Amino acid sequence: MNDIIRIGDEDIIGDFITRIEYKVPLFMCVIGNTETAKVPGISAAGANPEITDYTPAADMEYLIYKKCKCIEGVPITPEGIPTPAIITKASLELSKMPLLIANGGVSVFPSVPYIDFGGKSGKNITHGRAVENPIEIFEKAKIFGKMISKVVNYLVIGESIAGGTTTALGVLTAMGYDALDKISSSLSINPKNKKKQIIDLGLKNTNLKIGDLKGKPFKAIEFFGDPMQPALLGLVIGVGKKIPIILAGGTQMSAILALIKSIECSILKNIIVGTTRWIISDKNSDLRGIINQIDPEIPILAANLDFSMMEYEGLKAYEYGMVKEGVGAGGSVIASVLSSNNQINMKKIQDKIRNNYKELI
Amino acid sequence: MNDIIRIGDEDIIGDFITRIEYKVPLFMCVIGNTETAKVPGISAAGANPEITDYTPAADMEYLIYKKCKCIEGVPITPEGIPTPAIITKASLELSKMPLLIANGGVSVFPSVPYIDFGGKSGKNITHGRAVENPIEIFEKAKIFGKMISKVVNYLVIGESIAGGTTTALGVLTAMGYDALDKISSSLSINPKNKKKQIIDLGLKNTNLKIGDLKGKPFKAIEFFGDPMQPALLGLVIGVGKKIPIILAGGTQMSAILALIKSIECSILKNIIVGTTRWIISDKNSDLRGIINQIDPEIPILAANLDFSMMEYEGLKAYEYGMVKEGVGAGGSVIASVLSSNNQINMKKIQDKIRNNYKELI
Repeated sequence: MNDIIRIGDEDIIGDFITRIEYKVPLFMCVIGNTETAKVPGISAAGANPEITDYTPAADMEYLIYKKCKCIEGVPITPEGIPTPAIITKASLELSKMPLLIANGGVSVFPSVPYIDFGGKSGKNITHGRAVENPIEIFEKAKIFGKMISKVVNYLVIGESIAGGTTTALGVLTAMGYDALDKISSSLSINPKNKKKQIIDLGLKNTNLKIGDLKGKPFKAIEFFGDPMQPALLGLVIGVGKKIPIILAGGTQMSAILALIKSIECSILKNIIVGTTRWIISDKNSDLRGIINQIDPEIPILAANLDFSMMEYEGLKAYEYGMVKEGVGAGGSVIASVLSSNNQINMKKIQDKIRNNYKELI
Repeated sequence: MNDIIRIGDEDIIGDFITRIEYKVPLFMCVIGNTETAKVPGISAAGANPEITDYTPAADMEYLIYKKCKCIEGVPITPEGIPTPAIITKASLELSKMPLLIANGGVSVFPSVPYIDFGGKSGKNITHGRAVENPIEIFEKAKIFGKMISKVVNYLVIGESIAGGTTTALGVLTAMGYDALDKISSSLSINPKNKKKQIIDLGLKNTNLKIGDLKGKPFKAIEFFGDPMQPALLGLVIGVGKKIPIILAGGTQMSAILALIKSIECSILKNIIVGTTRWIISDKNSDLRGIINQIDPEIPILAANLDFSMMEYEGLKAYEYGMVKEGVGAGGSVIASVLSSNNQINMKKIQDKIRNNYKELI
């Protein structure tokens, strides 16, 4: 069994892996909040809509301290399925990757050191004014990215924001991509109609039609995005001229790719998407289908995680389509495997995840 | 003429230089504010006491954008002498050093990306409650330091805080070091009596005597320090087990050394102080004399900067004892010279400083 599933041109993938193999990357996680997450039934990143505010902060506290400070336990879905941060934490513990946390704009601040770009928590995209200052956040993040690229081998970058697939869909739709039937969800049953309603309302309230913001990335974020996006985007544009990047996430990262394409498309050659098997085998979403509209040459790598043999229902649920990805889980696993010269494999990672989960319950 | 003046045991210095030579470090600058700076006559880091609030933010904006955003021009002394950030900027421009900015606790936020540790602007040390949460700031900074030490060759770390020599004296005095006649000042005439009055009042208001906080580093910061200190301290303790450090500053850094000694003294072996010729040749202060009380083996390197031939009075004033050091100026010059395999020398740096100053006036 291969630990890493490859989807895309074999030459491009081989080339990319040659550039990063055996090297220790920097792992960054960008957090944000959007009021969009509180529309009932939109996000599973929290036991109830109100508590999704705490999810990004709690995820970061878990990654740093192995326990959350702003909530009891760890973030869970309404069904009790744990955050993918336990996967990311396992990768970080097994490898030598350092973790830096960046704040795109949150309503609950994590009790960790973080990099600030002057962003604030995002509003509901139905109002058509989601992010106040996307250019400021982007420019500051780009400066930080440029600086860090001088000392880092390559970057693995993930996100934690509840409601993020809806804002990703918002940005993609506003920019004219066909993504409604392709975007993923942290819920096992994808609330596509609800997402569509939200975006339709946003379009109505801004007097815009699908595709009207093609070539206007910052307007797309301002009206339909979230504050994590300009921060992650700026970091990627800042480092991407110098070092390779693994965009660590699911369909949310396709919105980032679309934004990159409209700002500095040459950087796309320096990027792969790193995700989980649960994303690429999901029948209710189509990551490849979105990426193909942006640039079909961008490869996808997927960590071949398999929780079907786990003895805990909370983990087994990932096999039933719950959660699937987030907090850079898939990309962190891929990077830790590739950095290790076969010292870190899927078995070791899954054992570590099992132990981490056991410690929680 | 040697570009770098060496003060200390030649074997220790040679050893240290061997470890860092030809390598590109990370340059960090930690900013903070303390109300102590607003006591009239205490700080020259601003044209008047009230504007010292803006100095750290403006310094950082200058380092990033080569112009300030929160003020017109650049920070100057009451006599119009420019900030040492123009020296630091020259080093950063000539070398490949990346710059990261950390916020210890400010009242004016710079319009730059910065790392946040949860600190707030400091109060006047006469009240005996200067820093609210030194341990929180320290712990977060330490986490960041540990992370960054995994990908960085070595660290050069400076500060920008108006009033910082007074809070350094406060910490040193509370911990029992004899520093009153040895601490430096950004003013050409060192306001020692004023500093003594402030600290005496702080001691009176806390019912403490000189030396009572020996072995209590966080109490010393809480009562007599500033928020830059726990941030810088945490970063140094975080990285110092793994990589070498140049503490880039004048007598302020002796307070950091005293704090390090009382928390994790083994790290002192990984540290040198990097400063300017103006500090080590200052007749009104005695950096070596303070450091000898902490650990006489800690070497001092001084950038052999000489502004006597500058055609601008604003720069020439450095030769008359104005400003002398700050914003990691001396350490940044030393690191850029050592990183460059003789490609960067004092002439090139001074030419660059001259040009940077010319652009300002």
